[in-house]
Amino acid sequence: MKVAVLSGGVGGARFLRGLVGVVDPADVSIIGNVADDVEVLGLHVSPDLDSILYTLAGLGDDERGWGRAGETWHALETVAQLGGDAWFRLGDRDLGLHLVRTELLRGGSTLSEVTEKLRRAVGLESTLLPATDDPLRTFVETPAGTFPFQTWFVGRGHRDEVDDVHYAGAPQATPAPGVLAALASAELIVVAPSNPYVSIGPILALDPIRAALEARSVPCVAVSPLVGGRAVKGPADRMLARMAGGTRPADVAGCYTGLLDALVVDEADAPADLGDVRCVVTRTLMTDLEAARRLAATALDAAGAVA
Amino acid sequence: MKVAVLSGGVGGARFLRGLVGVVDPADVSIIGNVADDVEVLGLHVSPDLDSILYTLAGLGDDERGWGRAGETWHALETVAQLGGDAWFRLGDRDLGLHLVRTELLRGGSTLSEVTEKLRRAVGLESTLLPATDDPLRTFVETPAGTFPFQTWFVGRGHRDEVDDVHYAGAPQATPAPGVLAALASAELIVVAPSNPYVSIGPILALDPIRAALEARSVPCVAVSPLVGGRAVKGPADRMLARMAGGTRPADVAGCYTGLLDALVVDEADAPADLGDVRCVVTRTLMTDLEAARRLAATALDAAGAVA
Repeated sequence: MKVAVLSGGVGGARFLRGLVGVVDPADVSIIGNVADDVEVLGLHVSPDLDSILYTLAGLGDDERGWGRAGETWHALETVAQLGGDAWFRLGDRDLGLHLVRTELLRGGSTLSEVTEKLRRAVGLESTLLPATDDPLRTFVETPAGTFPFQTWFVGRGHRDEVDDVHYAGAPQATPAPGVLAALASAELIVVAPSNPYVSIGPILALDPIRAALEARSVPCVAVSPLVGGRAVKGPADRMLARMAGGTRPADVAGCYTGLLDALVVDEADAPADLGDVRCVVTRTLMTDLEAARRLAATALDAAGAVA
Repeated sequence: MKVAVLSGGVGGARFLRGLVGVVDPADVSIIGNVADDVEVLGLHVSPDLDSILYTLAGLGDDERGWGRAGETWHALETVAQLGGDAWFRLGDRDLGLHLVRTELLRGGSTLSEVTEKLRRAVGLESTLLPATDDPLRTFVETPAGTFPFQTWFVGRGHRDEVDDVHYAGAPQATPAPGVLAALASAELIVVAPSNPYVSIGPILALDPIRAALEARSVPCVAVSPLVGGRAVKGPADRMLARMAGGTRPADVAGCYTGLLDALVVDEADAPADLGDVRCVVTRTLMTDLEAARRLAATALDAAGAVA
C-alpha cells in the first residue's frame, strides 16, 4: 500500500520507523517540514529532515530523541571557546552532514536533490522529500516579540507563549519535485504525530499541498501528538491551549479541518466526538519500536475503516 | 628584545614555542604563511596559522605534530560516509575553529582581524599576523602537472617531485596590517626552521616584506629545517635537492640570498662555508620543549654575534 506521510521531526520520525515496519519501506513517501530549517555557523541545518533520516537509518540517539547516536560535541565546544555562535546544538557527526549539505547547496543543488543524495548514502528505501525547495520559514509571535522558529525554540527554550504562527515565503513557495506526485499516487495519506502549528502547518501552508489533500480520493488519517492533553515532547500542548482553546482531540482535529477522515488519539483522550472525522482510540505513546509499529498499524486500519 | 619571526606551520610552531620560553612572548611578532590556506567543505582553513596558534596555546597534538590534542574525527567520518569531500583531514575540535573563522570572513572581517580575535580567545600573548589578507596561494609544478599546494601536499601525499613553485596573487598582495611595522620595530628578525619554498617563500614573495628584509638595520637569522641533509618532516629536502641542487647549508642559505646574517645549522650538517653569512652550529632537532628553547637561545646568540 502506497502511503504518503506529512511529518515533522522527532515524533514524526518515531512514527515513521514504526510505519516502515508494517508496510514496504519503498512504498512510503515522506513529505518533511523544512520551515524550521536554520542557517547557523554558515551551515544549512534541516532538523526535521535529519531527524527522519537518522531515525529511519538507525543512526539516531533514541534516548535524547534527536541527533545522532554516539555523538560528540568537540567542534561546538571549540566554537564556544572562540566566542562563536554556539546556541544551536550541533554534534560532530551531525555537523558532517550539514557540511556536505551546505557544500552541495552552495554548488547549486536544490534541497530535494541534496536530500535524495543523503537518503541514498544512508541506504534509506523510503522516499524523503522536503515539502519545498523554496525558502519557507516559521515565525512565532509571542508577547516578547516575533521570532524565527529556532530562535524561539532553541535560543529562548520555547518559554514564550505563542499567540500566532506564520510561514514566511509560503505564498511564493511551490512543492518540491515529487511531492504532488506522491500525494496523487498514495493510497493513504497520513499526518504524523507532529506539532500541528510548527511541523505540519508549514507543509499545509503550501496551497497546492493543501488543495491536494482537500481533493483527495483516498483516506487521510492523522495521529494526534497529544497523550492525555499533553505533548510527549515540545510545546504542542501549550500552543494548542492558547491558539486552539484546548488540548482535546477536537482541538487537534480543528487544525486540519476539511483534510481528515480519521484521527487516531490516545486512550487518555477518549472518548471524543469529532463530527465527520472518525475518532480511533489506541495507545499512542511510542515507548519502543513495537509500540510505534502498533500505532502505525492502527493508522492503517483506520484508513481501511473509512475507505 | 623585540623579535619578528617569519614562520610556516609545524616546524616553525615548535621553534616559536621555544622562543617564547627565552624572550617575553609579548615581544614576539609572528608573520605566518597563508599561501597553503585552503577552502574545503566551504571552510577557510589556515593550516600554518592554526599550527602556530594551537602549539603556542598548548592545544596542539605534539605526537602527531599537527592539529589539536584530544582530537576526534566524527564529522569527517560522516562526510566520507555521505560521499562528501573528505581528503583534507579536519578533526572535530579543529573544525570548530574553521567554522568560526569562515563565519567571520563571510561577515566581512579580514583574515588578520579574525586571527587577532582567535589569538585573544586562546590567550596568546605574542602577535600573530597573516603575511597578507589578500588571496595568495602556492602552486607546485610537477611532472604530473601543476597543482594547488594542498592538492599536492595532502591530496597526492606530496609524492610528485617539484620542479618549480609559484605564488599566485603575490604581485597584487600587500602585507597585512602590522606586518611591516613588526619588521621595522624588530631588534631581530628570525626565519623559522620551515620549508624555504612553500612556507617562507610565499612570505618573501610579497615585495614590501622582501624589501624590508633587504633594507634591515638589525640582524636576520635563519634556522635550517634540515638535519643531516634531511627534512625532519615533509618534502623540504626533496625540494631543495631538485630545485637548489642539494641539501647542504649553502643550498638552504641560497634560498635567502641577501636576506641573512646568520644561518643556524645542525651539527650533522657542519662544517659549512656560507660566505658572508655566519654559520652557527648546534643541535637543531626539537625533541622536546627544552631543545626548542635551546635552539631559540642559539638563534638569539647568533644575532648578538653578528650585530
